[in-house]
Formats: sequence, C-alpha cells, structure tokens
Amino acid sequence: MSELRKDLVKNNWVSVAEHRALKPNDFPIARKALESSVTGGFCPFCEGNEQYTPPEIAAYRENSEPNSKGWLVRTIPNKFSAFELEGELEETRVGVFSRYNGLGKHEVMIETPEHNVDFHQLSVEHMEIILKILRDRYNDLARDKRIKYIQIYKNRGIFAGASLEHSHSQIVALPFVPAENQGVIDYFKEKHQCLLCDIVAQEMNDERLVAESEAFILLCPYAPRFPYETWIIPKNHSEHFGGITATEIQDLAKIIKKFSNVMIESLANPSYNLVINTAPVNVDYQPGYHWYIELTPRLLVNAAVEIASGVYINPVAPELAAAMLRENMLTAK
Amino acid sequence: MSELRKDLVKNNWVSVAEHRALKPNDFPIARKALESSVTGGFCPFCEGNEQYTPPEIAAYRENSEPNSKGWLVRTIPNKFSAFELEGELEETRVGVFSRYNGLGKHEVMIETPEHNVDFHQLSVEHMEIILKILRDRYNDLARDKRIKYIQIYKNRGIFAGASLEHSHSQIVALPFVPAENQGVIDYFKEKHQCLLCDIVAQEMNDERLVAESEAFILLCPYAPRFPYETWIIPKNHSEHFGGITATEIQDLAKIIKKFSNVMIESLANPSYNLVINTAPVNVDYQPGYHWYIELTPRLLVNAAVEIASGVYINPVAPELAAAMLRENMLTAK
Repeated sequence: MSELRKDLVKNNWVSVAEHRALKPNDFPIARKALESSVTGGFCPFCEGNEQYTPPEIAAYRENSEPNSKGWLVRTIPNKFSAFELEGELEETRVGVFSRYNGLGKHEVMIETPEHNVDFHQLSVEHMEIILKILRDRYNDLARDKRIKYIQIYKNRGIFAGASLEHSHSQIVALPFVPAENQGVIDYFKEKHQCLLCDIVAQEMNDERLVAESEAFILLCPYAPRFPYETWIIPKNHSEHFGGITATEIQDLAKIIKKFSNVMIESLANPSYNLVINTAPVNVDYQPGYHWYIELTPRLLVNAAVEIASGVYINPVAPELAAAMLRENMLTAK
Repeated sequence: MSELRKDLVKNNWVSVAEHRALKPNDFPIARKALESSVTGGFCPFCEGNEQYTPPEIAAYRENSEPNSKGWLVRTIPNKFSAFELEGELEETRVGVFSRYNGLGKHEVMIETPEHNVDFHQLSVEHMEIILKILRDRYNDLARDKRIKYIQIYKNRGIFAGASLEHSHSQIVALPFVPAENQGVIDYFKEKHQCLLCDIVAQEMNDERLVAESEAFILLCPYAPRFPYETWIIPKNHSEHFGGITATEIQDLAKIIKKFSNVMIESLANPSYNLVINTAPVNVDYQPGYHWYIELTPRLLVNAAVEIASGVYINPVAPELAAAMLRENMLTAK
C-alpha cells in the first residue's frame, strides 16, 4: 500500500510506500543493471507469461481469451502501484504533516508481446493500436468522478527511469490536479488566448520547428529542460488527449514512429521519456489547456541544482537541436 | 554564453547555452561513461594542473602561490558556467517568450588535490576547511546586490549528475529567488512559526530521527522525494548558511563525515547530491526560512511521472529508511 504525502517545503506530492524498504540492490540502477541492462531472466510482460501479471483491463487480441497468448497490446494494473483508489480522498494529520489515502489508479500498457522489439521498431499500424487503447483508457478512467488528472507516460531506458526493459507505457490517474502546468492557466487569464495555440502560430516557420504533418507540429521548445527536448503539438486547439480522432491517430502514429527512429539514431540510442500533457477531468472548467506530447531524451541526469532550485541547465541550444533533428527528419524513412 | 529562459508552461527557469550543441557522446552518460566511470585521462582538478582551470577565487594553502601546487581546497569560476553576471537583469521579448541576460555566477570548489580521494574519505578537519570556505564564498557573493539567492550543491556519481569524478562542489549565485522553497513562506504566513523549527520539535524523538549532535539533527523527511533522503537541520533557528559559527562548523563536519560514510556503506556506494537550502539575500525580508542540508541518494532516476506531474514515487518508507540509517550511525566510527 502507498499513501500520498505532502512535502511542505517544496509543495510536492510524494507517493510513499508505507511498509517497504527496498535494499540498494533492489533498485534498477544497482551496479548489475549498469553492465548492459536487465536482459536475460524472467520477464512477466512476455507473451506466454500472462498468468504472472494481474488480470488485464484491456487488450488488442484477435481470437484469443483474455490473459492468454495471442495479443498485440495489453493493459494491466501496475503490480507495484504507487496509487490506489479506495473511497474518497481523505486527509489525516500527523503533527504538522498531512497524508492522504485514496490515491488514484496506476496501469501499465505492455506495448508488444515481444521482449526484443523496441518501441521505435513497432510498425505504424501497431502504434495506432497503442494510441487508440491509450485514448480509450483515458476516456474510461475519466468516468470515475474522483479522478482529476490522467497522466500517460513512457520511460524508455535506464536513464529515463525504466525498471523493465520490455517496451511499455504507464497511466496514472490522480485524485488532484498537479500544479506543474499552471503556466497555461496563468497565460490564458492574462491574454485570453491559448498559450499552445500562440506557440504553434509563432513557431510554425521558426528556427525551432522540427517537422510538421497534417494535424501536428514538432518543435524544440523555447526553454527546454533537456537537451534535444521535442514537443508534438496538435495544430488545432484541443484540450483533452481523449478527444483525439481516428484520423489524427493515424497521423500521430506516423510522426511518432518516424521521430522516435530519428531520436534513437541521431542521439546514439538515448534513454527517453514520452509524456502526454492534457487538461484535467472532473473539475470546474478552466480555459487554457491544449494537449501535447513532450519527448525528452535523457542525455543528462537531473543534478542537484535542478533538484534544489528548479532551475534547469541545458547545454544545447534548442535552435541548434532543432536544426539537427529537422535535417534528420527530412532524410529519415 | 548562456541566457536564462522562462518555460511558460511549467514556470521553470532554464539556463540555455546560446550557441552550443553538444553531440551525444559529449554527455557524461554516453555509453563509455557507463562502463565504470571517467577514470584515466587528464583531470584539470588534480594538483599540478592549476594552469588548466580559470584563476582561483579562493583557496586553502599554507605557503604556496595562488594557482600553483600546495593547496587543500580551491575555488574557481566554472569554466562551463551556466550563469554569468553582466550588468543588470534585463528582459528581452521573443514573441510570447522572454529571455534574460545577467544570469549570476557559477563557481566550482575542488575539495581535494587528490583525484582518488572521495568526499567521504576526507578527514573531519579537511571537511571543516571546505565548510569554512563555502561559508566565506556565500558571504562574499551575498555582497553583490544583484544576487538574490546562493545555491551550494554537490553532485557525486554519475546518477547524481556529476560530469567529473574528482571530488568537487558547486556554487550558483542567481539574480532571482527560485520558487522551490515557497512552502516555508506559506507556512509562516499561516502559522506565524518556522516550519523547520516545528519539524525539529516534532521529529526529535520520532521514528524518522536518524541521529543528533550538539547543534544539528539528522532525519528522514516525512515526504521524501528520494529513497533514503536525509536532512541535516540546525536545531536553533538560523536563516542563512552564511551565519554558521566556527563551533557549528566543527560539529557539522563530524556529522557529514560520519553520515556520508554510512550512506556509502549502507547503500552500496550510491550516487548522491548534497544541497544547502538557505534564505535569499538582498531582497525584502520574509520570515520563514531556516537553512538546512538535503542529502539525496540517487538510487532511482527521476522518471516521466516526476518530470510531467511533479508527483514523486518513493518505494521506501522514510520510517524504515531512518531505522536502517539510525542503526548504522550508532555502529559507525
């Protein structure tokens, strides 16, 4: 079981395991893991090992039974969930501190039955299936009124926090709205316009543009936290990832396939994260949200200055990163 | 040259290199670095290589000339400074975005002339010298009225963001106050008491206490972002690290020496950060600050969920972490 605790100094939320104390060698970056990565050994995500995961929530299968072989994509509850939904969000005081129960939901999407096929190697059609199931999970989770924010993300590689090598994404459904994207609300309040729409308009022909498709643009953001950070933004104003259309999914799958290959090849097979930023659900309407994807190669580790002051140091100008990625997108298949 | 850019979505500050585009293999976590760590080869921090660093700002030497051999500790400008102070902080608009010149100062403290002596292996007397020079640098930097916050920190090991192996700390002097520690101000406004003083009072005999000395307590915080995160807090209310007394430095050096050894031994030689949180300088007085040290072993990499939502997932209960560290502090030399 986990509980949610508030860090009163930094106003962070922390999901703390109540009764667990992992030993150093339980962590993925223990020495052993450094040698190459956690290869060999048993993988619960591989086809044929369905009985070692919790029962699936959703899956893409043709003619097979749930929790058996014969699937392309499976979504399951996270066995080591950092978030569990029980009753209503309830505060308990612990002296000056507070903790909360009723944390939310935590799901894992296994993106392929094959252990040795990496995300960027999946076909465009396979990526479409992944995006469709993610959209459906988003909309399904949003039906629970206790859930206020749905965070879809992917950790790929040890420096991006992946603890398992087998390609997967995660979905966290939170009982509160994280403060991280407050900037878009502030911007709308001040200018009565959508920040992301303004960014799309300004950057469309700018030096930070990486590529564009029918429905999306790829750009290196003006103030990137990470070297070669790239965003994929829908050109049309759209608040919720859950509202993505079938046509947009086709378009997006092509871009993600192409760009993830470019990233792997241009940046020497980096660890990376993929994050979908979107509007909160089941809260009073606040204008300003516009969903988009952040792709963050992890060529640097967040150091003390980032942790302590929230000031990021990025040694790569996004204008130069964009020039390199743009060039490689043009020549990529 | 670097410039400071504002991330409008997350309200982060990012120091961006204007005209640099490092290639993947320029980054410390490129494959090569993973094999063991960056050993062998030339180190500009070693004794005898003083001419390869910018001229020193301060040093502890007995009878030798500046920038020559014969020192115990040297402080130099960071050659790859993310922050440079030129004139006043000035905003330039770039469409919807903003950038700033006049960023601040960035110094490196080389903590030992010897490449193969790690921080935890230094003598207590050596650590006293380091703390004294850090205090003096803090007070010296605070005299520049353009500087509003002084961040002292240490990255040890590749998973803590260290790019050089030779033991060193860094000092960043910023022209603004980062919003990270806003919680202590909010707490004071609400309760008219110091949060850290209240934490010291509450935790003194609690299950999260790790150790105490005459002037300091060590504890695992209630909502730790990182497994085995530990804070060292002055028992008496004290706002600025720059105000630490000679007696307190003696006491603190002993604790840091002992605890860094315990951390290295208990946690299988982890990467870690050491951060000094303190009050801002040259701004209107705001009550609520109380300086303290955060020690964060980096057994996990910040993954997408931390990056995207600011919600940390910590699989180790601080009560269990404290029990283990407390036990090891009792038996440590």
